[in-house]
Amino acid sequence: MNAEIIAVGSELLLGQIANTNAQFLSEKLAELGINVYFHTVVGDNAGRLEQAVRVAQARAELIIFTGGLGPTKDDLTKETIARLLGRELVIDEEALRSIEAYFARTNRTMTENNKKQALVLQGSTILKNEHGMAPGMAITLNSITYMLLPGPPKEMQPMFLKYGRPFLMEQLGRHERIESRVLRFFGIGESQLETDIEDLIDQQSNPTIAPLAGDGEVALRLTAKHHSEIEAKKLLDKAEQAILERVGRYFYGYNDETLFKKTVKMLKEKKKTIAAAESLTGGLFLTELTAIPGASQVVRGGVVCYANEVKEKVLHVPASVLTTDGAVSERCAQLLAENVRTLCHADIGISFTGVAGPDPLEGKPVGTVYIGISTPENETEVYALALPGQRDAIRIRTAKYGCSIILKKLAAAYEG
Amino acid sequence: MNAEIIAVGSELLLGQIANTNAQFLSEKLAELGINVYFHTVVGDNAGRLEQAVRVAQARAELIIFTGGLGPTKDDLTKETIARLLGRELVIDEEALRSIEAYFARTNRTMTENNKKQALVLQGSTILKNEHGMAPGMAITLNSITYMLLPGPPKEMQPMFLKYGRPFLMEQLGRHERIESRVLRFFGIGESQLETDIEDLIDQQSNPTIAPLAGDGEVALRLTAKHHSEIEAKKLLDKAEQAILERVGRYFYGYNDETLFKKTVKMLKEKKKTIAAAESLTGGLFLTELTAIPGASQVVRGGVVCYANEVKEKVLHVPASVLTTDGAVSERCAQLLAENVRTLCHADIGISFTGVAGPDPLEGKPVGTVYIGISTPENETEVYALALPGQRDAIRIRTAKYGCSIILKKLAAAYEG
Repeated sequence: MNAEIIAVGSELLLGQIANTNAQFLSEKLAELGINVYFHTVVGDNAGRLEQAVRVAQARAELIIFTGGLGPTKDDLTKETIARLLGRELVIDEEALRSIEAYFARTNRTMTENNKKQALVLQGSTILKNEHGMAPGMAITLNSITYMLLPGPPKEMQPMFLKYGRPFLMEQLGRHERIESRVLRFFGIGESQLETDIEDLIDQQSNPTIAPLAGDGEVALRLTAKHHSEIEAKKLLDKAEQAILERVGRYFYGYNDETLFKKTVKMLKEKKKTIAAAESLTGGLFLTELTAIPGASQVVRGGVVCYANEVKEKVLHVPASVLTTDGAVSERCAQLLAENVRTLCHADIGISFTGVAGPDPLEGKPVGTVYIGISTPENETEVYALALPGQRDAIRIRTAKYGCSIILKKLAAAYEG
Repeated sequence: MNAEIIAVGSELLLGQIANTNAQFLSEKLAELGINVYFHTVVGDNAGRLEQAVRVAQARAELIIFTGGLGPTKDDLTKETIARLLGRELVIDEEALRSIEAYFARTNRTMTENNKKQALVLQGSTILKNEHGMAPGMAITLNSITYMLLPGPPKEMQPMFLKYGRPFLMEQLGRHERIESRVLRFFGIGESQLETDIEDLIDQQSNPTIAPLAGDGEVALRLTAKHHSEIEAKKLLDKAEQAILERVGRYFYGYNDETLFKKTVKMLKEKKKTIAAAESLTGGLFLTELTAIPGASQVVRGGVVCYANEVKEKVLHVPASVLTTDGAVSERCAQLLAENVRTLCHADIGISFTGVAGPDPLEGKPVGTVYIGISTPENETEVYALALPGQRDAIRIRTAKYGCSIILKKLAAAYEG
């Protein structure tokens, strides 16, 4: 099945927004094995939209429209397609009730033009809008399937996943479920990960294994198809197991998990509190942890010891250490971790000191980083890293390394 | 002049990237008064690209292509257009030399297929690529102008601005310069700003005034056209003056300035150091300041006093204040600002305490924020805010308010 995606909206042609809907749909259609051969963007203009539809009819078996389903007179996707297909637009009673309910719920008066949103192509399958008012719809005529989706991504995406995709799978004669799972890794590069599991990626067709990368992390998206949801999940489990046998020591979580969320979760689970002394990260580690609701149960706080005087006066790193070893040193990291822990009465103290750049510091190159971790039970450990990249990348990677060190500590030291 | 933008690249049809090139070009073409009526995306396939070009030829006077100029056999934009237009591809000697120089500079061996990148449409105007290897080109045949640009945005954007846009202006018979300037505001809402200068926006056609918004900030983009660069800048100056007469007290900077950059810059200028006590912001304020290279000259550091015990033990807020006034109080903000300043030996102490949510705290609603600012010269001031939005928005707005308070302080207290 060959598809074309037509986005309707003058805001796209004025460059006010990018066509992220086409990107989203293309990715999802690719998973279904549907070839997307063209994207078209056209403005809120009936004549040009009609022209775009005629061009698409000559080259696609599936045409997905996004946008132009709203209440204003500029919204004319349904009207144009109805005219082209010689179909009536009729009020869908369920959609109308849901629009009325939407206004009632938000305490607003429903104006007459909002009724227009309940109009649908006669004989089409309605795709419910659970995040807005305008319903979507799909209809097949003369061997071409037309699917109309709303423009706002927060309405379009859930509608497509819940109602649009199953409709297409039905059309394709597939009664499969698509289940996907993202495995997240830290501490291993993308190319290393791909090399380690190259044969798995190549041999595997169900589930497919696709690497994703960003910000010092790597992830793998596994996508399985099976008519039974349980079997699809079993396929994912099996592939996951094979992958983790190879690179499990770098694995930290699933789907939208982050290292920071995982760290807060594990600290809560182990009932441990944390404090941080941040030099090169300037507060980034604590900022990320405290961005998570409920972090206050485990995050005590800490000291941003950017200036050496703050390291000395607030965190009691002796001046002699700062002058002989330097601020960027194993010894300094050790003392910072120990002293911030006791100062803030935390169970775990962690410290970050290093060179974020752009210039070297104390004769140490950009990317030199020391992370100290202190607990009352064990001797303080210091990890020395040489990180690639520039200032921002070094800072965020340092903070993430901090999480991975804490996670290891929590798994090991407080086991059982 | 009516235009169509054709992006060539299978990665777009697979949903791996969004078509941000079309967005960028659409915005720039709109500034020139060129109507963009269609965007098309097509894969790396000669037949379908040819089809897309034929469709565009029937409806556009300007067709801009992005992508498909690289060295691989999948890159076939030039070849396809040459065939369609009946034009030869010829080696451009300057482009070839620049490609050879590029390889020499990066110490890599130039493979034979890279020569392909120096091929251009015979008789076309070459658009130099100063950020990559493949040159762009433009040619007008049978009343249609074809412009070919590379796919990577970091090559395409500067090429278009420096060479592509002047070519189009020449075509349009315009010998104008386009100058634009962004004015940045904080502390005023988008709708308030628009209301305050509505008549200016409406009356103004040169420069045009377009509002931009995001993250609690508002900006205005002024775009002026004039054949003389000096006159274009004068037009911008005049409009800017009219705007700032109305809303100048919210203005903080130009173009890619941020409140954090401006704060570091002004602290350096006034030779003042700063320390922060961060409760609800959890380190975000210091993280943003220290993200700026050279921040170490003025940022001493501070304390992330997330737990009340840290406020008490490290920053000496009496337990009585925490129990009677509460951590979220004017009195607490005052003491935090004063004590972090003295603890870190800074010229300015700033504090952030409040309720980021999701739940209320001490009976105070989400969005309640106190910011304290302490200097040795003046009595400590505390600003009470009630911020809208959720956790992340409240935290970043609080940090930005901190900047605006410091900027006001620096302008007032250390004047002259």
